[in-house]
Amino acid sequence: MRRVGIIGASYTKFGERFDSNMQELAWEAFNDALKEANIEKDSVDYSIVSNMGGWSSESLPAVIVSEGLGINPKGSVRVEAACASGSAAIKLAHDIIASGQADVVLALGVEKMRESPTKTIVEYIGRAGNFMWEFENFGLTFPGYYALYATAYMSKYGAKEEDLCEVAVKNHYYGSLNEKAQFTNRITLEKCMSSPYVAWPLKLYDCSPITDGAAAVLLASENFIKEHKSEAVWISGIGYATGTANLSKRDDFSGLDAARRAALQAYAKAGINPDRPASQLDLAEVHDCFTIAEVMAYEDLGFAKKGEGIKLVKEKQTYIGGLIPVNLDGGLKAKGHPIGATGESMIAELYHQLLGKVKGGRQADIKNGRALAHNVGGTGHYAYVTILSLDRSDHA
Amino acid sequence: MRRVGIIGASYTKFGERFDSNMQELAWEAFNDALKEANIEKDSVDYSIVSNMGGWSSESLPAVIVSEGLGINPKGSVRVEAACASGSAAIKLAHDIIASGQADVVLALGVEKMRESPTKTIVEYIGRAGNFMWEFENFGLTFPGYYALYATAYMSKYGAKEEDLCEVAVKNHYYGSLNEKAQFTNRITLEKCMSSPYVAWPLKLYDCSPITDGAAAVLLASENFIKEHKSEAVWISGIGYATGTANLSKRDDFSGLDAARRAALQAYAKAGINPDRPASQLDLAEVHDCFTIAEVMAYEDLGFAKKGEGIKLVKEKQTYIGGLIPVNLDGGLKAKGHPIGATGESMIAELYHQLLGKVKGGRQADIKNGRALAHNVGGTGHYAYVTILSLDRSDHA
Repeated sequence: MRRVGIIGASYTKFGERFDSNMQELAWEAFNDALKEANIEKDSVDYSIVSNMGGWSSESLPAVIVSEGLGINPKGSVRVEAACASGSAAIKLAHDIIASGQADVVLALGVEKMRESPTKTIVEYIGRAGNFMWEFENFGLTFPGYYALYATAYMSKYGAKEEDLCEVAVKNHYYGSLNEKAQFTNRITLEKCMSSPYVAWPLKLYDCSPITDGAAAVLLASENFIKEHKSEAVWISGIGYATGTANLSKRDDFSGLDAARRAALQAYAKAGINPDRPASQLDLAEVHDCFTIAEVMAYEDLGFAKKGEGIKLVKEKQTYIGGLIPVNLDGGLKAKGHPIGATGESMIAELYHQLLGKVKGGRQADIKNGRALAHNVGGTGHYAYVTILSLDRSDHA
Repeated sequence: MRRVGIIGASYTKFGERFDSNMQELAWEAFNDALKEANIEKDSVDYSIVSNMGGWSSESLPAVIVSEGLGINPKGSVRVEAACASGSAAIKLAHDIIASGQADVVLALGVEKMRESPTKTIVEYIGRAGNFMWEFENFGLTFPGYYALYATAYMSKYGAKEEDLCEVAVKNHYYGSLNEKAQFTNRITLEKCMSSPYVAWPLKLYDCSPITDGAAAVLLASENFIKEHKSEAVWISGIGYATGTANLSKRDDFSGLDAARRAALQAYAKAGINPDRPASQLDLAEVHDCFTIAEVMAYEDLGFAKKGEGIKLVKEKQTYIGGLIPVNLDGGLKAKGHPIGATGESMIAELYHQLLGKVKGGRQADIKNGRALAHNVGGTGHYAYVTILSLDRSDHA
């Protein structure tokens, strides 16, 4: 199998982007990635556009994006794996290059969510899973689904609402250092605790926002990277799994089975010891669509034992200087969550972190040269875990 | 690169399928493909679900399908390339296996279109391309887009409405021999000519219908096929290209640029002479969403010279016994066109044709052991051309 590396990556300012249509957002991310990779757009052999859509008036987003970027007539496709769409795009881009069918593939995520009414978005996202069952029959919204996990976790392990709010405090802190974040304001524990409930025990500040944005990652083959003397970060392993459509068919609500499986696969591929992965990684991006999701991610990824994720939060072990820094870009919580672009934005962040290029006081200390992205679709309907490394030969 | 073969394929009865939900349709196709491949469902390493959706109440179709097929927790993703979604799924499944990341991948297309009002479908499909431009500003529907091609072709090459109707007559004839086709009635030239105009010069019988259906293709690595002594048809080349989102940015309306590019790529990969491909193939499936599309496909694929596609129709060269039989399953016109499943259903048909397994008087004569599927998304927004061969080593 050919080795695959990342040679350029970027994401747009996230937030309310009424100033740009889908093509313009895509261009903003692509153009920066292209400059960083120091290649011409004609080098792109194939593009994968990750987009959830549904609320968008564009029914063929990959077509719009291809024309907007001027990469016609190169082949393209749209992919969707709910909120993990971006990581699915990275996985497929990797495999296309590894198979020898292309040398340079663009994974570009884009989402225009703010132009739709919030009610529409909430209803649409609530349909994640099996529409007729939990959504129609029980009226569960997306915060409602994660609230089930939060109450199960709190009941089983004695976590408190304050503990969850500490995750939001951390992610807003790092968001305040990231000029591309949707929210650049810091919050206090009191601010989070006094925010209104969305779905008990989850409050406004436990929830990620509705976001416009795009993110682009340029992947290339080992040969291309050698020939073009490109600076690269290598993909050393990707794991992926699915969960049941119906939450009612699951055994456990204190973690996500799909995420645990995806992590173990990725560790096996990347040659990382699953018993103490945090010691072999320099930082991680995890899918904090809700604060409880970040806590569960710590455990699903093996950064903490079952029930001890909340200890990492209390001890501030996921700040820079701790056991493993997590979401140094502000995470979904503060950076924002433009569904189809979230996965690529995680990879873009890790790419820059591993190369030591992050400004603003949020650069992690790079010792192992390895980082991890954990991207969940739906409520564990999909999970993709991607491990990046500075070392080309770093895989099992 | 590892060689990739097809070990089982099937599609459901196409048409109005109010009897089955999305999961049931998917199961119907998958179960038959699984039996044919003689493997257990646990052998599937990854699944790709092609689905256009938009009109469906299920916002995460791949999740619904995975649960319905009982292939959780294996990884999955949805892909969309408009009406070429199924072929895009085949391309990605091929590359995943060729890269060594999986041994068995399921490409499954499914679409439930009939449960939505026709008006909704027509509006939604009309948005293919750049929504605000041709659809909103000029009121073009999908038949309208292809009517522009039809008038350009007729004006340039002197083709007549009767000539286009002959394509419909052929495809209804073969549809009448395919019990899974949506329309199994034969039609006369007069019947087609007297049908009402949808968008001049295209009449009702020039248009493919709105269809429910699913199609499944199981792809496997060379090693897996050897170990399991599976009967296989090999993928010898896949070409793909995109067109502009806006039709107004195109130079030529007598053929599809993306299809020509995709064909040349596929021929180069499969070692087929692009000057006379028909002589090296035993049959083809082409994307006859409208009768004019089949005529243009003959030329874009190099079966006929520019302007002479209509001669093939008049001389009945695309019936069994002619230069190259086309759409022996009835094509999109009579078999039906459940958008996301159309590509896989073409591959399923060719798989059975190459193995000589087709009943009902529509089996092609297999001499070269090679066949081609031409699958277009939108009005040439996407094109995927896939070449299958009985010979494992058959690629350039």
